[in-house]
Amino acid sequence: MLLEAIHHQPKSQYAYAYDEETLHIRVRTKRGDMDQVSVVWGDKYDFTPETITTSKMEVFAKDTLFDYYHVEIKPPFRRFAYAFKFEKGKKTVFLNEVGFKEDEMHSSGVGMLWSPSGMFEFPFLNPIDVHTPPEWVKDAVFYQIFPERFANGDPTLNPPGTEAWTPDAVPTRENFFGGDLQGVIDNLDYLEELGINCIYFTPFFEAYSNHKYDTIDYLKVDPQFGDEKKAKELVEKAHERGIRIMLDAVFNHSGYYFPPFQDVLKHGEKSRFADWFHVKEFPLQTDPLTYDTFGFVPAMPKLDTENPEVKAYLLEVARYWVEDIGVDGWRLDVANEVDHRFWREFRDTVKRANPEAYILGEIWHNSLAWLQGDQFDAVMNYPVTNSILDFFVKDEIDAENFMGRLDQMMIAYPKQANEVAFNLLDSHDTPRLLHIADGNKDRMKLAAMFQLLYLGAPCIYYGDEIGMDGGGDPGCRKPMIWEKDHQDHELFDFYKKLIQLRKDHRALRDGSFRFLSASKGAKYISFERTHGKDRFIIAMNTDTKQHDVNVEDVAKGKFRNIDTGD
Amino acid sequence: MLLEAIHHQPKSQYAYAYDEETLHIRVRTKRGDMDQVSVVWGDKYDFTPETITTSKMEVFAKDTLFDYYHVEIKPPFRRFAYAFKFEKGKKTVFLNEVGFKEDEMHSSGVGMLWSPSGMFEFPFLNPIDVHTPPEWVKDAVFYQIFPERFANGDPTLNPPGTEAWTPDAVPTRENFFGGDLQGVIDNLDYLEELGINCIYFTPFFEAYSNHKYDTIDYLKVDPQFGDEKKAKELVEKAHERGIRIMLDAVFNHSGYYFPPFQDVLKHGEKSRFADWFHVKEFPLQTDPLTYDTFGFVPAMPKLDTENPEVKAYLLEVARYWVEDIGVDGWRLDVANEVDHRFWREFRDTVKRANPEAYILGEIWHNSLAWLQGDQFDAVMNYPVTNSILDFFVKDEIDAENFMGRLDQMMIAYPKQANEVAFNLLDSHDTPRLLHIADGNKDRMKLAAMFQLLYLGAPCIYYGDEIGMDGGGDPGCRKPMIWEKDHQDHELFDFYKKLIQLRKDHRALRDGSFRFLSASKGAKYISFERTHGKDRFIIAMNTDTKQHDVNVEDVAKGKFRNIDTGD
Repeated sequence: MLLEAIHHQPKSQYAYAYDEETLHIRVRTKRGDMDQVSVVWGDKYDFTPETITTSKMEVFAKDTLFDYYHVEIKPPFRRFAYAFKFEKGKKTVFLNEVGFKEDEMHSSGVGMLWSPSGMFEFPFLNPIDVHTPPEWVKDAVFYQIFPERFANGDPTLNPPGTEAWTPDAVPTRENFFGGDLQGVIDNLDYLEELGINCIYFTPFFEAYSNHKYDTIDYLKVDPQFGDEKKAKELVEKAHERGIRIMLDAVFNHSGYYFPPFQDVLKHGEKSRFADWFHVKEFPLQTDPLTYDTFGFVPAMPKLDTENPEVKAYLLEVARYWVEDIGVDGWRLDVANEVDHRFWREFRDTVKRANPEAYILGEIWHNSLAWLQGDQFDAVMNYPVTNSILDFFVKDEIDAENFMGRLDQMMIAYPKQANEVAFNLLDSHDTPRLLHIADGNKDRMKLAAMFQLLYLGAPCIYYGDEIGMDGGGDPGCRKPMIWEKDHQDHELFDFYKKLIQLRKDHRALRDGSFRFLSASKGAKYISFERTHGKDRFIIAMNTDTKQHDVNVEDVAKGKFRNIDTGD
Repeated sequence: MLLEAIHHQPKSQYAYAYDEETLHIRVRTKRGDMDQVSVVWGDKYDFTPETITTSKMEVFAKDTLFDYYHVEIKPPFRRFAYAFKFEKGKKTVFLNEVGFKEDEMHSSGVGMLWSPSGMFEFPFLNPIDVHTPPEWVKDAVFYQIFPERFANGDPTLNPPGTEAWTPDAVPTRENFFGGDLQGVIDNLDYLEELGINCIYFTPFFEAYSNHKYDTIDYLKVDPQFGDEKKAKELVEKAHERGIRIMLDAVFNHSGYYFPPFQDVLKHGEKSRFADWFHVKEFPLQTDPLTYDTFGFVPAMPKLDTENPEVKAYLLEVARYWVEDIGVDGWRLDVANEVDHRFWREFRDTVKRANPEAYILGEIWHNSLAWLQGDQFDAVMNYPVTNSILDFFVKDEIDAENFMGRLDQMMIAYPKQANEVAFNLLDSHDTPRLLHIADGNKDRMKLAAMFQLLYLGAPCIYYGDEIGMDGGGDPGCRKPMIWEKDHQDHELFDFYKKLIQLRKDHRALRDGSFRFLSASKGAKYISFERTHGKDRFIIAMNTDTKQHDVNVEDVAKGKFRNIDTGD
């Protein structure tokens, strides 16, 4: 046994409450090292050889180095003490909080196995601390809309110089095409037909640019898009069709034309907003920068979210759109650069306005620190994005590596965060999926298919479903193509069919997921998703050659081909 | 290189802000495995081979399996991206967030080394999130007083049946000896002479028992001890001598005679306090228990700290004693069974009343989940207690094991939590130190000496310093011996001298700590503590034989014998 490979951390993603009565306990070992791994557990105030239980654990994820074991336990008094038991051949080793022990019955002292004081502990399952994301997200299929580019429903709102909305229109960093909220309302039929049930809008608050990430007024719809009444109408009409709305909260920084920042530019340290930003030295200067910004962008001054006034203002914004306008969630821009304390208050504010609102952090990196139940429901799942692209689209990694990278996310967070993770393949910030695939529609479809059959909420970037192309910003921000003869209908039907399949089967939404085959060097995988008696076995091949996948070991019972129905 | 042994977790005790400009980065490797370990880092918005820095890491802790490396970094823009570089012989391996890579320059894709998107990240150092315990605790030497047994200063308060305060008095679970707050005031001279500068009181609020953990009224001093005026007088007189006061907050459960619980006992679900406890079924019954309790003790009903009324009541208690009476800290009883959310609000309340108040959790197990800056300043350091007892007193572990268990605590928490950890060797809950040592005063002195020269705030249990003895509760709760001829003056002087030494040298308080020798099978250790030019090399032998310790490698410069002055 390789003891150095064994890892457990109490009160973390390795030991957490899944719901008000259930604990998940996990442990890591070297891949393939153990014959059996168990949790030995009992009530911490009654922990004796007679009262303890031994629960066998199962491998639920693996990567190139490690196996990850998991077990679900419902302790009768919502608290317990535990140790791990590792078995390999004739050898048995125990791990408790003090360390490894080979002899279970003859250890002594504080670290002995039968004394709760040496055990790991889950001290008490308090319901208020349980990470509980909204249930509806498990059933959600998101559709991302960049408002300036989805549809122009009200030409009277067009900004000066609006360019013609044609299939060969060329987006630049500065130009405008006149997209607006009425355009979205007008096309709800289209979205309903595709089957999506939640729209994620990049910002539509008043701002200077076409992307609107440089906010001027967080409480106002940009006049190019409509007004608050129109936003409310959009929310209501979408809700009538069972479509929810998520907005984009850019709270890390404001835009250059945000009035408080303009005031500080003008009045310097005498401005009544002087404390709203992170100013190192007055007056404000851009070279060298005398204030903190997003990245090194002078036009995006970082807001001081520790300042009670700034906090009160932004929390009112958070409340207003949820409570008064009725939106169903917030996607938080640059979420990991804002303080944790702000996000805790943000969560309280938003959940008070609507306990079912979804709070989604934009974080490109490991996000465990935000997924403990006190801050975000989930994060944008870029590690999964990258793994899907690397395996299905770019052909850069093999099946084993793909499995390892996906399974690392399974152990990275509590299960409930992965169940509502936001799985995107592209966005307004990246080249479009078809572009990444070099125009290879088969590869694009493999990626989309995996996304739509995997755990977590998939998100489709507007237009991908009809074959829109384009490189990084601004190429990926072309106006939506509405001309039927310029749309790829076969691709649309592919998306529509997969979305419907996901909707029809809970196993494909929050059912269990496990790889059946993912070998070293292989270009194909198979995996299983199950819920109750509903079981799916899916095999996907990225190779140009045909491969056989042996599923006999797992496939007991009758299976139907979900494509042909046979 | 054993890759399975390498461990790092972003935004954890392996990567945290130490102060408003300093980050600590740590990584674990197999013990003795590496020639050199470094952090490769740069600003995450400007991360190129030209702008990155390589910082060498140092081993700061080790145990039987692992080495733990550490480095301090001050990123100019309070954010950074990083990877690790491991070197052994001719082999170099890099670790970033995506995994291990052997080739630094020719990797490609999202996981490539020179792309910040594949790096680990510390996204932004927001001051409000920094874990900042009060500075004074680094200089504190605590003295624990069990109020009923320290001194009887006002016999008019004696409860009926008070027994005689004699050196051979026998404490029972039920009897009383008349200790009170006036008794503590009367003996501040004694405490000042010993050199302690903070008193930790077990509860003195109104309660039924002699230990007062079964609270009746949290806002009232028990009439056997005095009243709120007397408590304020005690605080003021202690403060005049530079002695601070910490109280015991028993917020997990109330006592049986707590009026709200009595009301629920009487009125059942119609009681206006019906929601103050965790009642599974009315009426309340004790066999089987129909409500949650501390352990399985029916007389200690668990309070529902999620209930806003309960929360408001307890937070007012927390505020009152700090703001109105002036106490300097709270020790939180059974802290890990109360919800995290309550403790966050508790911290806000207490720090608002006094930003310098010390918040100390009673947790016997790994406490990382409470030591992130949003809940406790520190915890009672039982793992260190047990390690010191096992090595110096019980002779149950060797030097290598001792080092390993102590060093595991160094990596278990952020450094600032260890700097103010509460290091006790015994208490009202355990046998006395001299009893654990089977009366062997030499062993007792070794343990106390290590405690007083180690990182973290030491705490002396009343009477230990004059040679008091006694087993577990009630034996350890004898009345303090004030008769001079029954006190061990040599032991008192030993404690006094060590406390003074600690006070005279910052190196012995929050200076660095590292083991110089701690070998397998050995019964002796040596260690170094330094601050600036002040350096101490301390060797301690638990064996009956003499051993030579080679400190030539480390001891450059002139050293003085701190005992003889030579």
